[in-house]
Amino acid sequence: MGFTRSWTVRFSDTDPFGIAHYPRMIDAIHETSDMFMEEIGWPFWELTEEHGVGLPLVSMDFDFEGQVAGGDEVEIELTPEVGESSVQFDYRATHDGEVVFSGTEFRVCVPVDGDSGVPVPDDLRDALETGI
Amino acid sequence: MGFTRSWTVRFSDTDPFGIAHYPRMIDAIHETSDMFMEEIGWPFWELTEEHGVGLPLVSMDFDFEGQVAGGDEVEIELTPEVGESSVQFDYRATHDGEVVFSGTEFRVCVPVDGDSGVPVPDDLRDALETGI
Amino acid sequence: MGFTRSWTVRFSDTDPFGIAHYPRMIDAIHETSDMFMEEIGWPFWELTEEHGVGLPLVSMDFDFEGQVAGGDEVEIELTPEVGESSVQFDYRATHDGEVVFSGTEFRVCVPVDGDSGVPVPDDLRDALETGI
Amino acid sequence: MGFTRSWTVRFSDTDPFGIAHYPRMIDAIHETSDMFMEEIGWPFWELTEEHGVGLPLVSMDFDFEGQVAGGDEVEIELTPEVGESSVQFDYRATHDGEVVFSGTEFRVCVPVDGDSGVPVPDDLRDALETGI
Repeated sequence: MGFTRSWTVRFSDTDPFGIAHYPRMIDAIHETSDMFMEEIGWPFWELTEEHGVGLPLVSMDFDFEGQVAGGDEVEIELTPEVGESSVQFDYRATHDGEVVFSGTEFRVCVPVDGDSGVPVPDDLRDALETGI
Repeated sequence: MGFTRSWTVRFSDTDPFGIAHYPRMIDAIHETSDMFMEEIGWPFWELTEEHGVGLPLVSMDFDFEGQVAGGDEVEIELTPEVGESSVQFDYRATHDGEVVFSGTEFRVCVPVDGDSGVPVPDDLRDALETGI
Repeated sequence: MGFTRSWTVRFSDTDPFGIAHYPRMIDAIHETSDMFMEEIGWPFWELTEEHGVGLPLVSMDFDFEGQVAGGDEVEIELTPEVGESSVQFDYRATHDGEVVFSGTEFRVCVPVDGDSGVPVPDDLRDALETGI
Repeated sequence: MGFTRSWTVRFSDTDPFGIAHYPRMIDAIHETSDMFMEEIGWPFWELTEEHGVGLPLVSMDFDFEGQVAGGDEVEIELTPEVGESSVQFDYRATHDGEVVFSGTEFRVCVPVDGDSGVPVPDDLRDALETGI
């Protein structure tokens, strides 16, 4: 399942050159994962309490290919790939058809009281793969 | 003219008690002013270059009356009041009918190359008061 | 007891005019309260677990009197005033002897499992007033 | 030249599990690069105006290996590697001797009015390599 949201670059996201600070892009990336998990019914704020698992980030790898300014609308697309006990979120952000940034977050599935990986629960796998 | 937007509290806005950090509420307040100015056609990112004026903040006064958690939808309402050479933004945020925070930002209208107040331009006054 | 820390305005704190975004000043204010509470031995991250109380913010009132740019050193001074069941933090920030912002946070003392005010514990009162 | 700074995890950096949100770690990484550039006399806020070049980020790659809580002191070490027309910042963050995160930022040297890489100026190269 793919997920796309629109991010408007705000005045307070921009630097002395009038372009978005890259830590603000990271905030937008993280907000996108949060919106995606909410969309599929497994919001981060319920994950542990209601489902007994967590999806901590273990690595991220991003390329910043373009610059955006205040008022620019950036389409951020998230595509999940589900592994045995891990989840990868692939991101691709575009503005006016040009890539702004792209990259990957790698997350592991851990139980509430441990930190070694466990298999992704079947219903979470279904939600990630089909959006249901 | 009144303006209302919905702010969803994100996981990364919340603290060890699971409630929104207050600096993140300030971010949401500021984002609301940015969305409002964009809505009326005078976005902060064009204000100085296209209109030769700025609206720097000179004071703020907020009461935090309730607490919100990850996933909560907060309705933030902004009501502008236009003075001779100043603009006041009144905010009121509610969740499930309860007030979360309320308060005021006071801004002065300054020319691009000065810092003493000047009268709010008539077309900006119209936009603030009528949303056009 | 007074407490002063130095805040260096970073490139990523500054806007297209090269001056600090005001939400970043709010972050610096909040960080100052966090550093102060750590300094007097009652850090926010231990307050509830070790002492059974919290100090949630109920109001803030700030004036922004000056502008600062990347690299500016801002001295932020915090002076606590302890009430019966509340604490007020007065802030005054200066750069090169000029006031940048000043204002007040008002906090109430609440027990871990309630939200109505309780008297500030004597040892917290002592720490706030004497820094011990 | 290596550079190390200490980052204290603040209450407002932490999530409902009491550990640092990862976008706040990214802020700490970025602040470290800002402190380093200031230390060697080439602060980001002067780079373009005084030296006619910029060092925009083109990629980042980080591993998050440990978790830190409010009050934890994290030593963040930055080691620059200077290429022909690029600069790589290698980071390694530890707490109590354990690695918290590590990774790399890759930046290109661009002239003030262009976006294709130019050779890193000799005096910037010297500053990056020797800290002078």
